[in-house]
Amino acid sequence: MEKTDSIGIVETKYFLFGGDSAGLSLESGRVLSPVTLAYETYGRLNGEKSNAILVLHALSADAHAAGFHKGEKEAGWWETMIGPGKAFDTDKYFVICSNVIGGCKGSTGPSSTDCATGSPYGLDFPVVTIADMVQAQRRLIDFLGIDRLLCVVGGSMGGMQVLQWVASYPGRVRSAIPIATALKTSPQQIAFNEVVRQAIMADPDWKGGDYYRSGQPERGLALARMIGHITFMSDQSMEEKFSRKLKNGAYSFRFGPDFEVQGYLRYRGDRFVKRFDANSYLYVTKAMDYFDLSGNGLFPGETDTRFLVISFKSDWLYPSYQSQDIVRRLKARRVDTTYCEIASTYGHDAFLLEVEEQTSLIGPFLEKTFHGYDVVKSL
Amino acid sequence: MEKTDSIGIVETKYFLFGGDSAGLSLESGRVLSPVTLAYETYGRLNGEKSNAILVLHALSADAHAAGFHKGEKEAGWWETMIGPGKAFDTDKYFVICSNVIGGCKGSTGPSSTDCATGSPYGLDFPVVTIADMVQAQRRLIDFLGIDRLLCVVGGSMGGMQVLQWVASYPGRVRSAIPIATALKTSPQQIAFNEVVRQAIMADPDWKGGDYYRSGQPERGLALARMIGHITFMSDQSMEEKFSRKLKNGAYSFRFGPDFEVQGYLRYRGDRFVKRFDANSYLYVTKAMDYFDLSGNGLFPGETDTRFLVISFKSDWLYPSYQSQDIVRRLKARRVDTTYCEIASTYGHDAFLLEVEEQTSLIGPFLEKTFHGYDVVKSL
Repeated sequence: MEKTDSIGIVETKYFLFGGDSAGLSLESGRVLSPVTLAYETYGRLNGEKSNAILVLHALSADAHAAGFHKGEKEAGWWETMIGPGKAFDTDKYFVICSNVIGGCKGSTGPSSTDCATGSPYGLDFPVVTIADMVQAQRRLIDFLGIDRLLCVVGGSMGGMQVLQWVASYPGRVRSAIPIATALKTSPQQIAFNEVVRQAIMADPDWKGGDYYRSGQPERGLALARMIGHITFMSDQSMEEKFSRKLKNGAYSFRFGPDFEVQGYLRYRGDRFVKRFDANSYLYVTKAMDYFDLSGNGLFPGETDTRFLVISFKSDWLYPSYQSQDIVRRLKARRVDTTYCEIASTYGHDAFLLEVEEQTSLIGPFLEKTFHGYDVVKSL
Repeated sequence: MEKTDSIGIVETKYFLFGGDSAGLSLESGRVLSPVTLAYETYGRLNGEKSNAILVLHALSADAHAAGFHKGEKEAGWWETMIGPGKAFDTDKYFVICSNVIGGCKGSTGPSSTDCATGSPYGLDFPVVTIADMVQAQRRLIDFLGIDRLLCVVGGSMGGMQVLQWVASYPGRVRSAIPIATALKTSPQQIAFNEVVRQAIMADPDWKGGDYYRSGQPERGLALARMIGHITFMSDQSMEEKFSRKLKNGAYSFRFGPDFEVQGYLRYRGDRFVKRFDANSYLYVTKAMDYFDLSGNGLFPGETDTRFLVISFKSDWLYPSYQSQDIVRRLKARRVDTTYCEIASTYGHDAFLLEVEEQTSLIGPFLEKTFHGYDVVKSL
């Protein structure tokens, strides 16, 4: 990637609340306090504070969505979509990416220190929901002085947060872009989350979640990620990337990795262990399990929020019919909704990879939301 | 199930070879000797020995395909398809079901005693392939004095054995019914097999495969089966069976099984541990990984074998396009081939569950193969 169209060097910031101010009242009935929320911002908030876009991330990502941290070579996870002249154009918009509570990327989660004990929470950390994550983000948006967000956008679990934002705070969202997501987590999705958690909890190094002195349950967490990775790709993208290519040219007749796909999964698993906390994987997947805005969840009242719903043809983890369920629900409420299924072969990962198609949908959608009319570019 | 249309009480038999006779020369170059093969037979072999059907099983099944073992209440795994008046009509045909080597259901596998050491093989057992399994079955068919099988049939890994039979011994198979299977194992299928094996091998109780004194790696094997089970069902069948039903009426805000689907998976995992050997799961999945009859594998020479190829619409583990690849290959060789995609919602498990549809296809296909012409029943 050329750095020329990048937002450049960025820094993660931290918003703290619940020390003096009120803590976070969770759906479980517990109160989390104090709370730190990691976030980044790109571009400038205009005088009317009407150009703010909130970007929400998936399962294992973080607040670092675009640009580069000083001294690092790897850009943020949505660098291709956020920056000058990109889909989320930082020359026009003020883009905020907020991390989630329960994670391990700077926001309060199970690896944070419990003030009551002076040790990491571990499994004493309260189970949080998508609504709890969004409530924390709302406190951040209050703090930033933004009354109404121009747009809330995210893929996968980020898309759940998008829908939850509209459900919890409909008056504060002018437009919403849920990508590759669902109105409720299906039993198949719960099942995959369950085996992922079992993989972690079956590792003796997990120690009931109390492993912060002894080290991560590396093997279990790597296995969890390997399982996840299969579900993020598609049958076709695996065929295109690996087919039956062998690592060493011939069958080994042993249980090592004969095929490239095996080596790749192991590599991804091992790499993940270095960057993510096992307990956070439990908490965040559990939050997804509980997500259910079917019934009247999505719209308890009236809304004038505009929607752009995006799904991907080869995404079998969050199949298009789930996005179409959202669209049906919106249309039934006469909500201004555009839907597009992108003919991608990348599977669920497509929301990170299909830049051009998403850009051509999102750019005009944001402009229309911002200006209130279609912007036609002169040729 | 009514027992009235059952073949009734049956017994597993054991065919031994390789003690005095030649052992089994494996694809790996190693020789397995002696070899025991477990099998069952239902119905009677006719004088011409022209009515024999060989049934081949999937990953974790066994030779007990139909009827009841004395004192047991559970019928064989394809009881609905094999018996008097059923798809594989034991009033007309002599049905043989052969177990596979590498398994743990009476045939030689990693849990068998290695004569060289007097202890179970464990990982000293040679890695076997689908072709090795079929070679052992061919010895059984020789022993039974059958020159030409009327039909070879099986689903999933059983279907791979069907294709391998035609590839290895085309002259000995009059017809073949590969169900819910593929010409080669895809990278996605290899990936799922890989995480299943990793789940077992990550369990400290696995001990490098040397656990026969200390007991199974129960947690890893249960997890392996849970992963497998998700892939055997479909998104839709899980929705129909579980939806988001809770076990105890309310969210627990803990990491126990809140949802019925979680409880079900754990139950299936725990039950599996009691009936299957962890090392066998490694060996049998590895045999599947190596399966590849693409290229000229399926038909090295001429064949007059007739084919009935069956797939299921909701089977995402062995999607219909893989069966259609088989059909294309057969049609290109002008092989007499019928193909049907059954509109089932059961996913990969459908080959065990869609009795009526499969019966209506298989019954006439077998009759035509047996008689050489279509048999029209008088009304």
